[in-house]
Amino acid sequence: MPDELGVIAAMAKAAGKPPRGYSVIGDDVAMVPSRPGRVVLKTDMLVEHTDVPPGMTYRQAARKAVAMCVSDFAAKGVRPEAFMVSLGLRSGIGRGDVDGLAQGLRDAEERWGVHLVGGDTNEAEELVVGCAMVGFARKVVDRAGASPGDVAVVTGPFGLPPAGLKILMAGARSQARFAQRARKSVLEPDPDLEVGAALAPYLTASMDSSDGLARSLHTLAKASGVGFVVEELPAAGGVMEFAAANGFDGAKMVLEGGEEYVIVGTVKPSELQAARRAAKKAGGRLIAVGKATARKGEVVRREGGGVRAIRDGGWTHLHRS
Amino acid sequence: MPDELGVIAAMAKAAGKPPRGYSVIGDDVAMVPSRPGRVVLKTDMLVEHTDVPPGMTYRQAARKAVAMCVSDFAAKGVRPEAFMVSLGLRSGIGRGDVDGLAQGLRDAEERWGVHLVGGDTNEAEELVVGCAMVGFARKVVDRAGASPGDVAVVTGPFGLPPAGLKILMAGARSQARFAQRARKSVLEPDPDLEVGAALAPYLTASMDSSDGLARSLHTLAKASGVGFVVEELPAAGGVMEFAAANGFDGAKMVLEGGEEYVIVGTVKPSELQAARRAAKKAGGRLIAVGKATARKGEVVRREGGGVRAIRDGGWTHLHRS
Repeated sequence: MPDELGVIAAMAKAAGKPPRGYSVIGDDVAMVPSRPGRVVLKTDMLVEHTDVPPGMTYRQAARKAVAMCVSDFAAKGVRPEAFMVSLGLRSGIGRGDVDGLAQGLRDAEERWGVHLVGGDTNEAEELVVGCAMVGFARKVVDRAGASPGDVAVVTGPFGLPPAGLKILMAGARSQARFAQRARKSVLEPDPDLEVGAALAPYLTASMDSSDGLARSLHTLAKASGVGFVVEELPAAGGVMEFAAANGFDGAKMVLEGGEEYVIVGTVKPSELQAARRAAKKAGGRLIAVGKATARKGEVVRREGGGVRAIRDGGWTHLHRS
Repeated sequence: MPDELGVIAAMAKAAGKPPRGYSVIGDDVAMVPSRPGRVVLKTDMLVEHTDVPPGMTYRQAARKAVAMCVSDFAAKGVRPEAFMVSLGLRSGIGRGDVDGLAQGLRDAEERWGVHLVGGDTNEAEELVVGCAMVGFARKVVDRAGASPGDVAVVTGPFGLPPAGLKILMAGARSQARFAQRARKSVLEPDPDLEVGAALAPYLTASMDSSDGLARSLHTLAKASGVGFVVEELPAAGGVMEFAAANGFDGAKMVLEGGEEYVIVGTVKPSELQAARRAAKKAGGRLIAVGKATARKGEVVRREGGGVRAIRDGGWTHLHRS
């Protein structure tokens, strides 16, 4: 059973050799070279009982904690440079779990090109992994820039993570291949910084979608003073069939599931083709789902011949619905 | 019972109007204007069952979470500019506790001149307050610069917080005035950025002392490749008497208690007087406790006619001694 000093040693080893100008792990503070513009910061906290479903390893949990911050940077078109972690570990945690956490942080460093520069270790009643991330930008895409007529876009389909959670937590039935994709979407969320950076010049507003598509649309609508009409639900392949086979509401899974970690944003209609090409060139995709309207705060979707309200549902911590 | 959005609103209100160039709370990321040099970062996590003793309010707990980061900045002589908080809150937390946390963050902003720029809210099985802090510096005092002959200094006495904990947690007996000071040292730790900034030009090495004096001296000794001989224990007034009256080991309380949040460092003998004046001018004090020696890693104290080893004791998370 490693103690705090053993944990720090494992994390320092995972961090590897720091880039030039970066501090080495182990002083009171961490340092990275400053760049002109603004310092971009994000913190997020993974807590075991809400963020770690059955089947997720410590390695995956640590990687996910970093992914949660990366997702916000991706949505703003900013490449992060460094991150710190605050660990809350159960008393008596074993060497294998500590090494798993360290490996997960290493996975994150390699996947997203960010550097672990520091952190701290604490004892807690459940696993807690806090991540604080830093980058630099002259300007970022905010949430308030959407205008009526802008095209609403997403960088990936929705519904796989909620399906994965139903499979992992409730034993929902599904075909093996779909189950594998759905589980992976939960266990190894994969926000894409390349796509975010490529799209940033085209986005009039954007945010991440970790609380679900409906929440993201409502939030952008409020911040920008617009409404949205969704023409087509961006359902991931197999989700509607999975929902039907298990008696779930497929549209709700797509709209309110959450944990998607893709970008939800708006682009000018005249820039849609260019934005699509940019996303594709970066290895991603851009899906048009509808458009911004002048009906402030009203988020609806077309269904049959009419429209139907999309409620502001999705994941809210501490919420009892 | 406020939900996540209610918590965010309370925190945004506590944060007040952001300074020029700072982002407003509520986007995916936070931003502060960059400055030349290096970005200085620190994260720390307050966890209820280890960091929140009986008698500590939510307001005090939130303030302490920020103090834990401020302490490291003070020890490095850097004034922090902004911080983010990650909250882990019990399901069903009341409005009063949320407002208490917000008020504690506000207290911290006012005490240390730092600005709350963002954060996130989560549900957890116990109160968790993660703090991530940012500042800028060209150069910081590190832990590796002490040389044999340097004077070992501290910016405050030791032993009050461990006495306070004994009073709060174990009902130890004490005089009312001492009890009040001891309790306050635990409930409202007060690292001093002015003293840290004033001393930085004189310090050859430094660190904070939240894990106790012995741990700080051993850590500086290892990092600098020196030893230390402590000539006089910097016991806070009343601590030895309190220990004697309650059957505690007074020297151990001073050396291994922890939670002191003062600076432990080294200065050249020729600069001691100037450093002392600088600390005093900043409203603080500098206490010489001994000197660095060439005996690598050996930390001892004079007692009677001889010397006695100071063990590397103090607070280690996950440690079973």
